[in-house]
Amino acid sequence: MANTEPATVTNKQIIFSGYVSGFPKESDLKVTTTTIDLRIPERSTSVLVKNLYLSCDPYMRISMGKPEPLSSSLVPPFNTGEPIIGLGVSKVIDSGHPDYKKGDLLWGVVGWEEYSVITLFPYSHFKIHHTDVPLSYYTGLLGMPGMTAYAGFYEICSPKRGETVFVSAASGAVGQLVGQFAKLMGCYVVGSAGSKEKVDLLKTKFGFDDAFNYKEENDLNIALKRYFPEGIDIYFENVGGKMLDAVLINMKLNGRIAVCGMISQYNLVEPEGVHNLTTILYKRIKVQGFAVSDFYDKYSKFLDFVLPYIRQGKITYVEDIAEGFESGPSALLGLFHGKNVGKQLFVVARE
Amino acid sequence: MANTEPATVTNKQIIFSGYVSGFPKESDLKVTTTTIDLRIPERSTSVLVKNLYLSCDPYMRISMGKPEPLSSSLVPPFNTGEPIIGLGVSKVIDSGHPDYKKGDLLWGVVGWEEYSVITLFPYSHFKIHHTDVPLSYYTGLLGMPGMTAYAGFYEICSPKRGETVFVSAASGAVGQLVGQFAKLMGCYVVGSAGSKEKVDLLKTKFGFDDAFNYKEENDLNIALKRYFPEGIDIYFENVGGKMLDAVLINMKLNGRIAVCGMISQYNLVEPEGVHNLTTILYKRIKVQGFAVSDFYDKYSKFLDFVLPYIRQGKITYVEDIAEGFESGPSALLGLFHGKNVGKQLFVVARE
Repeated sequence: MANTEPATVTNKQIIFSGYVSGFPKESDLKVTTTTIDLRIPERSTSVLVKNLYLSCDPYMRISMGKPEPLSSSLVPPFNTGEPIIGLGVSKVIDSGHPDYKKGDLLWGVVGWEEYSVITLFPYSHFKIHHTDVPLSYYTGLLGMPGMTAYAGFYEICSPKRGETVFVSAASGAVGQLVGQFAKLMGCYVVGSAGSKEKVDLLKTKFGFDDAFNYKEENDLNIALKRYFPEGIDIYFENVGGKMLDAVLINMKLNGRIAVCGMISQYNLVEPEGVHNLTTILYKRIKVQGFAVSDFYDKYSKFLDFVLPYIRQGKITYVEDIAEGFESGPSALLGLFHGKNVGKQLFVVARE
Repeated sequence: MANTEPATVTNKQIIFSGYVSGFPKESDLKVTTTTIDLRIPERSTSVLVKNLYLSCDPYMRISMGKPEPLSSSLVPPFNTGEPIIGLGVSKVIDSGHPDYKKGDLLWGVVGWEEYSVITLFPYSHFKIHHTDVPLSYYTGLLGMPGMTAYAGFYEICSPKRGETVFVSAASGAVGQLVGQFAKLMGCYVVGSAGSKEKVDLLKTKFGFDDAFNYKEENDLNIALKRYFPEGIDIYFENVGGKMLDAVLINMKLNGRIAVCGMISQYNLVEPEGVHNLTTILYKRIKVQGFAVSDFYDKYSKFLDFVLPYIRQGKITYVEDIAEGFESGPSALLGLFHGKNVGKQLFVVARE
């Protein structure tokens, strides 16, 4: 880059106040304004991006907890006094990296701020080549959640035509796709969600065979028996706790449980006890935790698979888009109270 | 068979009194005497055997519980008023089956009685061809428990040289073999057991790298951290409950848990809660229930593998042999109080 006058601009950030116990509050995430030089220093291989869409994902609650080896092996903790780290869709403003040039679009790991300086490492960022679909999809359907649904369902669950599939948090960023993948595979699929609106979405928009509102069920075991009188072959686990306990006693022989998330447990000081683990033995069940990052080598294969379905209207996606940088904290916190309908994100800038 | 005079003899049996809640008692298993004709009727394809060694196995507690679809999918319930069903080593007295003739030795499913009429179905019985090893081994090392250790360790755990392995109930019929297999594989292996005598056995006889008495540990998590400061790659689960909870938070990334049994839970009216299941997610752990019956097609491969080690003295086996038919009930019940040291069985007859 030629040495021109520094172009310093203001840069709003969402700063992490410190480790959270219980449900996070707005005061745990504070909007501040700093400044940033919009040029990458000479000889740096970093990339400076303008963040367009920032993604709110349940796993981020794990990064808010007290750092400890267990959870840190999935996601690193946030640093107190620094911006929240998440995933976003961004546009390159300046680049010291040979693979990226000004104007390129990418999705990947960025700070919650208007502009980020990013350092590339394997699978930290993906260049966006297909822009005939909504750009925001790269925080969801075409980003980490989409890849999570794809890897979790096809790789971990090994689904077969005709099998029965249950998805919890089924209208969320990942769940809505798992249900649609299950239907494409010829499975019977039922989802649970936390409101009538979400249940309706599952049945009318995403094509689930059936769905129920877990908050209206006194006994989740009875609810599951109603939808799965013959039992569940595949459970796509997003919530944990009581739901997992009820699912376990409804699993079929040789059933598979893909553990994608346990959102019901993240805000608890003491995790709930799960009692029905002997069914893992009785029914020869496989329970498998997985992290999408172990599957990113399949990302281009995933795009080849999913893009045609999107273009043909055979896969659809519902987003819950908050407007403006300041909406970030409440959008994220809303996830833990089930306020989002579909994939939660917020718009920092549209271009 | 030529039609000769019927040879009717007395046949002692151990009769199941009815479904058990909590720990089984001697009164749940009653010794009675009936008679049996020692000849198979013409045109029957059954086989009449004399039972020599009968096997006491923890899974039998599951068959004593109230019949319900969950547990029944692993093992069928016992029938009230009929003999306990288990595994044993037997000698053929008379046979209507072309594959068995008088004098043949076999191991497999028999009633707890001196003589049994058995009906063959796939993998219900295996002919014994190698008699240079103790015949009783076919209730343990060379029978179902041996095959369980083999399938569970090699097939479910996918062990690699240098990995760390933890085995609970490690001096039992299965655990003592898992530890020896782990050492053959070049793993570091630690076992837990419930007495000093058993812990000594693990260290001195079976070659475990270390071992501890779980009853002397106030905090199983701290105990496991002492033996596995870097964490556990493989857990061979025989006990469930609190031990599983402590193991979960000590698992390494991509760890594997083979669920072979959960003996601590079988006698509980309400199973214990396990709290640390989020580690399945954080550490991408696979928890896999399995049943040895799904692996019996590998039995001859197992024998080819294990017999040379036995003959070379590289695999050893400790049995707890009760003498006489009447010792059966207390031998079985002792399992649930950890009274057995090594594989529990009892002798009905030596030939």
